[in-house]
Amino acid sequence: MSSSIYGDYIKSVIRTVPDWPQPGVNFRDITPLLQNSAAFRKLIDSFVHRYQELEVDAVAAIDARGFIVGAPLAYELGCSFVPVRKKGKLPFRTISETYTLEYGESTVELHADAFREGDRIVLIDDIIATGGTMLAAASLIQRSGGHVVETATILDLPELGGSAKIQEAGYSVFSVCSFTEDE
Amino acid sequence: MSSSIYGDYIKSVIRTVPDWPQPGVNFRDITPLLQNSAAFRKLIDSFVHRYQELEVDAVAAIDARGFIVGAPLAYELGCSFVPVRKKGKLPFRTISETYTLEYGESTVELHADAFREGDRIVLIDDIIATGGTMLAAASLIQRSGGHVVETATILDLPELGGSAKIQEAGYSVFSVCSFTEDE
Repeated sequence: MSSSIYGDYIKSVIRTVPDWPQPGVNFRDITPLLQNSAAFRKLIDSFVHRYQELEVDAVAAIDARGFIVGAPLAYELGCSFVPVRKKGKLPFRTISETYTLEYGESTVELHADAFREGDRIVLIDDIIATGGTMLAAASLIQRSGGHVVETATILDLPELGGSAKIQEAGYSVFSVCSFTEDE
Repeated sequence: MSSSIYGDYIKSVIRTVPDWPQPGVNFRDITPLLQNSAAFRKLIDSFVHRYQELEVDAVAAIDARGFIVGAPLAYELGCSFVPVRKKGKLPFRTISETYTLEYGESTVELHADAFREGDRIVLIDDIIATGGTMLAAASLIQRSGGHVVETATILDLPELGGSAKIQEAGYSVFSVCSFTEDE
C-alpha cells in the first residue's frame, strides 16, 4: 500500500492517548491534526493530489470521522459526497451490510440511490484497524453498482491486519501514514 | 436571522422524507444536496463567502452531519477544525454540557485544549430544530474561552423555535434556507 510524501509530517501532529478506550490500547487522536490549519490543509491536499486525475465521481465517507476528510476532498475534486452511515441514520431507502466485530456485530447503510451504475468512487475513513467497517462499506458500494477506485485513510494500523485484508479482497489501499503498536 | 442568495436553489435539492423517523414528521434529507456536486459547492461557498473576511480562527462542527459542512469550510478558510462530539467519543481531557431533549437528555463534549483564549469560532451543524444541541455546544465554546462569531446551519426549522432561542441567548444565527412544517 502507498503512503504520502507528507506522511511523517502528518504523523507528527497525531496524538497518542494511552489506555483509551480501554487499558492497553494506544488511541491515535487526530484532533490536534485537525486543529493545526497547515497540517489539515496538507492532509486534504495529499488526497486531492492523489485523486484529482482519476475521474472520481464520488467520495464515500464512513460515519463520523471519515466525513471530516471526505467532505473537503469531494469539495476540492468537484464530485459528489456520499455518507456511509451506521444503522438507522439514513431516512430514505437503504441497502445495508452487517459485519462481525471482536464482540458482536455492526451494520453500515447506504442510500439505495447514492450511486449510478459504473460510478468511480473513493471510499475514505480516518483510520484503518481491523478493516471490518471499510470492507463492509466497499461491499455496499459494489452492490449498488459503483466501482471502488481506492480505499483511503489518514492512518493505517498494519499490525491489526485490516489493510492487508482489504487488499486481499481486491481493493487498492492508501494511507497517508501508519503506526506500529509500540510507537 | 439571515439567509443566503443561494437559499432557494439549495432548498430545491433537499428531499423531504415523510413520516421519518416517526409518523407525522417530515424529515429534511440533505443527501441529494451532497450528491449534487454543483449544489454542494454552492452550499460550502455560501458559508465561505460569509465568513472569509471575519478572521475566523476555527470552525467547530457538531457530530456527525455538521462535519460534512464544517470540514470543507475550515479547509477553505484556512483555519482549525474542531469536532463537538457526542459523549464518550473524544479520547483526551474533555469538558461537557448536558441538555434536555423532549424525552430524556443528551450530552455534548469538547476537548479541553480545542481553543485558545479569545479564538473566534463559527459553530456549524446541518439543521437547527429545537436548538438544544447548538445551544449546549455554544456554551461549551464560551466556557473554553472561545468567542462564537455565529451559529450556522444549512437549514432552519423556525417553527420549532431553536433559532429564536439561540438568538435570545445572544448568539448570531445564519441559515442558508428554511422550511416551514407544511412545505
